[in-house]
Amino acid sequence: MILSPSITIPGLVRIKGGALERLGLYLRRGGHLRVVVAASAGLPAAVEAVAREGLAREGVEILQWLEIADNDFEGVAGLFARLPGAAQALVGLGGGKALDAAKYLAFLARRPYFAVPTALSHDGFCSPQASLTIAGRRRSLAAALPHGIVVDVQVCLGAPRILWLSGVGDLVSKLSAVFDWKLAFHHRGEPVEDLAALLSDATVRQFLDNPAFTVQGLTHLATALMLNGIAMEICGSSRPTSGSEHLISHALDALCARPRLHGLQVGLATYVTCRLQGQQADTVDRLFQATGFWDAIRADPFVREEWLAALAAAPGVKDDFFTVLSTRDCLPEFQAMLDHDPCLAGCFV
Amino acid sequence: MILSPSITIPGLVRIKGGALERLGLYLRRGGHLRVVVAASAGLPAAVEAVAREGLAREGVEILQWLEIADNDFEGVAGLFARLPGAAQALVGLGGGKALDAAKYLAFLARRPYFAVPTALSHDGFCSPQASLTIAGRRRSLAAALPHGIVVDVQVCLGAPRILWLSGVGDLVSKLSAVFDWKLAFHHRGEPVEDLAALLSDATVRQFLDNPAFTVQGLTHLATALMLNGIAMEICGSSRPTSGSEHLISHALDALCARPRLHGLQVGLATYVTCRLQGQQADTVDRLFQATGFWDAIRADPFVREEWLAALAAAPGVKDDFFTVLSTRDCLPEFQAMLDHDPCLAGCFV
Amino acid sequence: MILSPSITIPGLVRIKGGALERLGLYLRRGGHLRVVVAASAGLPAAVEAVAREGLAREGVEILQWLEIADNDFEGVAGLFARLPGAAQALVGLGGGKALDAAKYLAFLARRPYFAVPTALSHDGFCSPQASLTIAGRRRSLAAALPHGIVVDVQVCLGAPRILWLSGVGDLVSKLSAVFDWKLAFHHRGEPVEDLAALLSDATVRQFLDNPAFTVQGLTHLATALMLNGIAMEICGSSRPTSGSEHLISHALDALCARPRLHGLQVGLATYVTCRLQGQQADTVDRLFQATGFWDAIRADPFVREEWLAALAAAPGVKDDFFTVLSTRDCLPEFQAMLDHDPCLAGCFV
Amino acid sequence: MILSPSITIPGLVRIKGGALERLGLYLRRGGHLRVVVAASAGLPAAVEAVAREGLAREGVEILQWLEIADNDFEGVAGLFARLPGAAQALVGLGGGKALDAAKYLAFLARRPYFAVPTALSHDGFCSPQASLTIAGRRRSLAAALPHGIVVDVQVCLGAPRILWLSGVGDLVSKLSAVFDWKLAFHHRGEPVEDLAALLSDATVRQFLDNPAFTVQGLTHLATALMLNGIAMEICGSSRPTSGSEHLISHALDALCARPRLHGLQVGLATYVTCRLQGQQADTVDRLFQATGFWDAIRADPFVREEWLAALAAAPGVKDDFFTVLSTRDCLPEFQAMLDHDPCLAGCFV
Repeated sequence: MILSPSITIPGLVRIKGGALERLGLYLRRGGHLRVVVAASAGLPAAVEAVAREGLAREGVEILQWLEIADNDFEGVAGLFARLPGAAQALVGLGGGKALDAAKYLAFLARRPYFAVPTALSHDGFCSPQASLTIAGRRRSLAAALPHGIVVDVQVCLGAPRILWLSGVGDLVSKLSAVFDWKLAFHHRGEPVEDLAALLSDATVRQFLDNPAFTVQGLTHLATALMLNGIAMEICGSSRPTSGSEHLISHALDALCARPRLHGLQVGLATYVTCRLQGQQADTVDRLFQATGFWDAIRADPFVREEWLAALAAAPGVKDDFFTVLSTRDCLPEFQAMLDHDPCLAGCFV
Repeated sequence: MILSPSITIPGLVRIKGGALERLGLYLRRGGHLRVVVAASAGLPAAVEAVAREGLAREGVEILQWLEIADNDFEGVAGLFARLPGAAQALVGLGGGKALDAAKYLAFLARRPYFAVPTALSHDGFCSPQASLTIAGRRRSLAAALPHGIVVDVQVCLGAPRILWLSGVGDLVSKLSAVFDWKLAFHHRGEPVEDLAALLSDATVRQFLDNPAFTVQGLTHLATALMLNGIAMEICGSSRPTSGSEHLISHALDALCARPRLHGLQVGLATYVTCRLQGQQADTVDRLFQATGFWDAIRADPFVREEWLAALAAAPGVKDDFFTVLSTRDCLPEFQAMLDHDPCLAGCFV
Repeated sequence: MILSPSITIPGLVRIKGGALERLGLYLRRGGHLRVVVAASAGLPAAVEAVAREGLAREGVEILQWLEIADNDFEGVAGLFARLPGAAQALVGLGGGKALDAAKYLAFLARRPYFAVPTALSHDGFCSPQASLTIAGRRRSLAAALPHGIVVDVQVCLGAPRILWLSGVGDLVSKLSAVFDWKLAFHHRGEPVEDLAALLSDATVRQFLDNPAFTVQGLTHLATALMLNGIAMEICGSSRPTSGSEHLISHALDALCARPRLHGLQVGLATYVTCRLQGQQADTVDRLFQATGFWDAIRADPFVREEWLAALAAAPGVKDDFFTVLSTRDCLPEFQAMLDHDPCLAGCFV
Repeated sequence: MILSPSITIPGLVRIKGGALERLGLYLRRGGHLRVVVAASAGLPAAVEAVAREGLAREGVEILQWLEIADNDFEGVAGLFARLPGAAQALVGLGGGKALDAAKYLAFLARRPYFAVPTALSHDGFCSPQASLTIAGRRRSLAAALPHGIVVDVQVCLGAPRILWLSGVGDLVSKLSAVFDWKLAFHHRGEPVEDLAALLSDATVRQFLDNPAFTVQGLTHLATALMLNGIAMEICGSSRPTSGSEHLISHALDALCARPRLHGLQVGLATYVTCRLQGQQADTVDRLFQATGFWDAIRADPFVREEWLAALAAAPGVKDDFFTVLSTRDCLPEFQAMLDHDPCLAGCFV
């Protein structure tokens, strides 16, 4: 008799300074002595060197070192066809594309996957999905949670601060996503998995306690983003981490002449949707002031017309997905915000 | 090939005002139409009435309504022997003893267990263990995480504020417990499960963001205490939630003429052990000021001599359990704190 | 998203000659260096010596060696209260009572349990339940499948042949049990888990291919009985392994002046119920001829009046449990069998 | 604390006459109202009609009806890219290629998969792997066990008898595969998962009890082949079901001018390898006589030179895979068999 649901969780988690140079140690302890590494094209040479030396020191053999510039399903399938049979684990090292490619490659090969992000620009590193293009269209493909999460917060501290702001934007989006989920329950009876929703909400609160670009602040951000991946695993959907603000960002990706970092788009959209939802916009504003998020947006403002088009297109981005944007035509309210909301002043051209 | 560990999680979580009157609804939806309720002796009549009416309204039959005054293994075994075979679920309603008894009864009977705490005085309601006396000795017996967690925060808001402070004290103890765990790793190589440790730490941070005796604050506290239960499930031990501060509290239970609420003892001991650990005592102090924890202690101070004896006895309470108390004789430092630490002024007689 | 059910399976299985002397090796490989052994009172000294020497040779320490003469819940609870905290695994060695006590003790203590039967007289050694008396009444209490199954077929070959015949009787009962399950579906809509039913049926077929009291025949019998335990785990009930023939045997246990071995009662009852079901009685007869089961019964015949009383009482033994005995009053048919069936001649006095 | 391993098992199993027309019922009961069917190109029109009518009668909508002529990874990936998001389950209907394609498609899409074989020519329908070509090379790709197994034995009885003989050949290969596994343990220490090995062996024994081309015989064969898939899931490899005899068959696939049915090649190779192993060749011979396997081979004999080449190539087919072929040069023995073994007379030209 199975009484309660089970979920899979990562078997190894290390979030701390110096974790990258210990990667070989973590792999060896788990018995993974022959690995394939999928690393971002353009990974800083110093980061690559630390990783390679750490593996070599522990006698972990690199069977292939793949440079990942793009993450399309077809390319990953090709890598899968050529994957050495002896590979005992896959390592994704660097940014989102490399990590998504490595995660999916590991899923196809049914090998343990170790996610080693070098920046914390979004919550994808620990989700059970991989964002790949397939037949030219970007999709979130079902995969599995990483077996290992290794975040060297010292390395992340060395990454551009704008990537951190992107991570902040992606994290705070949980506030509007969870509210959208509850709207979908009240309007359509879509069940809310409270454990996932409460966990997702708690991750934001925890970060709000100390939203600093420091080793400790990055540890909290990495923890929060990781726990959001687990929240997705708990409920089997992206509902706790992705709502109307993500629809807007997806629409922007399709519409913009120059799409920005995922978390910057999502973060600003979160402020907008929280205003539309009538909840917690102040919390978002305070966080964006404290972290310098507003300043970063104003330093490279978005295009007003593109956002208007994206907001109009957003409800149609995903089939059968109820959000605040489904409750009414939100365009007039958004136009009014653009004209009058002091927070948004300077954020658009 | 099993790549990553699995854990069991609650299948139903509801933390909100009005949850108690909807308990029948939750049970019926899960197909649990015949239940046994184990309720605290002395449960307020109004709370009992809400529960009974909610079950009746949904056609959930109460096969037995057990009054729990004590939670010894032998008594629970007796209840097990007389448990109706038709019982489809067990409900624990009220305080710690009733919930522990119901949890263990459900474990023996392999039936789904629904935890319905009416106050948030400690983190036991969602742990995978039951605290029972067996052959006269209190022990944490392995059981299972509850299948359902139903916390009516409105009901909890009606419980005495001192119970909430006890919950605050039990929550903040995660700060010293996690640090003790890391000490055990550095001194003895005892492995730290980072996911559990980070989750445990995050629950405290999340509460620190808004430590209020309000519906929202209680929602955050209940979430935090619940997630700590899941942290225990993740690592299969109480390490992420219980360290030297719990040893002191256990020693107090054995030594004191009049033991106090678990979380009051543990909370104060957390401040003391954080000082001994040289970390985060300020955070604890700020929380205790903000919530009125210090005031509550000073209103009914502890006995200095009992605490000195408890600190001396604490390292021997549990076999093979390394904490800051194992690193040196901490008694002189504690005596100095008692004499000079302004926070502790008025807390002891 | 969880697509399919999961079951727990034994992590270690060894069914072969010489397995007992290698028990220490199996325990050590699994990291179980300190164990508690619950052995049958009256276990042959030679068997005990082999077990002790094997453990000693591998450095596995015996923290307690418990002699089990009875298996009541209260006694097991007492053993649990005194179980050394350092015990890393429990070993049940000998016959049914010792194995059930050890299985339940391990369940309470949440420790890995190794079942080491020294005879194959029934299918209890690998079931997820423990047969204990509680408040004086025998019940099947939910427990867990053993972690380890170690059957030394050479040792089992040295046990009295009558115990083997009892195992044969318990195995063949799957034929009537599965048919009863299907009757319950057709008459009452009780769902049949085909995987469990097919597996259970297959275990009997496999044994029929070579029903010999030899090392190979015992290997097949042990495998069959073990797989029946897994069939129970698959469907979460005893349906694939226990039907009307077990009701009759339970009634006999309560009624008889001198109850016989479980499998002897069950085996004969299987022949009777297969006749009542109008299916496969010939298969049972052929097996009983080939193995000498009939001869063994005739050497110590049952009491006709006790069986008549048992058949009358059987439908009431278990609440809400549909079998062929629920379809009509079977007593007249049984009386006719007793008078005229040549197979039963000499089996009753 | 996780004490024992878990495996996933099919959630629905139906092996009986008339199962195909009830497929819609099984799908609807599971809540799968919109499905994609991948059917063999050339599926008999009558079979297709029964399936379509059964689905229509229960209101199960067919979103896509895919005709599968080939099963290459790239093709399946293309189907995945175009899979309707609304598909709630995948159905594989027909022969091996359609079932492997459907199984892998379901794996990529993380949707429940229902295997509906219309013949029992090999054990692939319930394995956790899919046999696909990738980059032109045939490989066993990790996938998942089917969620549903629906075998209409009446339909299978209508399929050509030669397909049944192929299934018999694939089943009996477990005898040599399990022996090879034990050889790998004795020579190289490769661990044998006894539960999987015993289950695999038991499936053959069970079929030997009644190896008939009848409804009951087909039910036993289907059960046996299904349980072998579960044996693979238990040990996480193909070891319990595939040894030297499969290496020979793979080599034949690569070498032969006209490869035959998988199970015919494997079956004959099983006889040969059992002779090389010095075990159970008699059992295989008796089964082949009883079923008409020898006659079928002689009616369309293999090519002697191709088999000699295949036996020479077999040890190199799979890296690091110890079998009886690794113990010595077996070619001379095989040549002697070809010349002198009366069973093989007429089987080669």
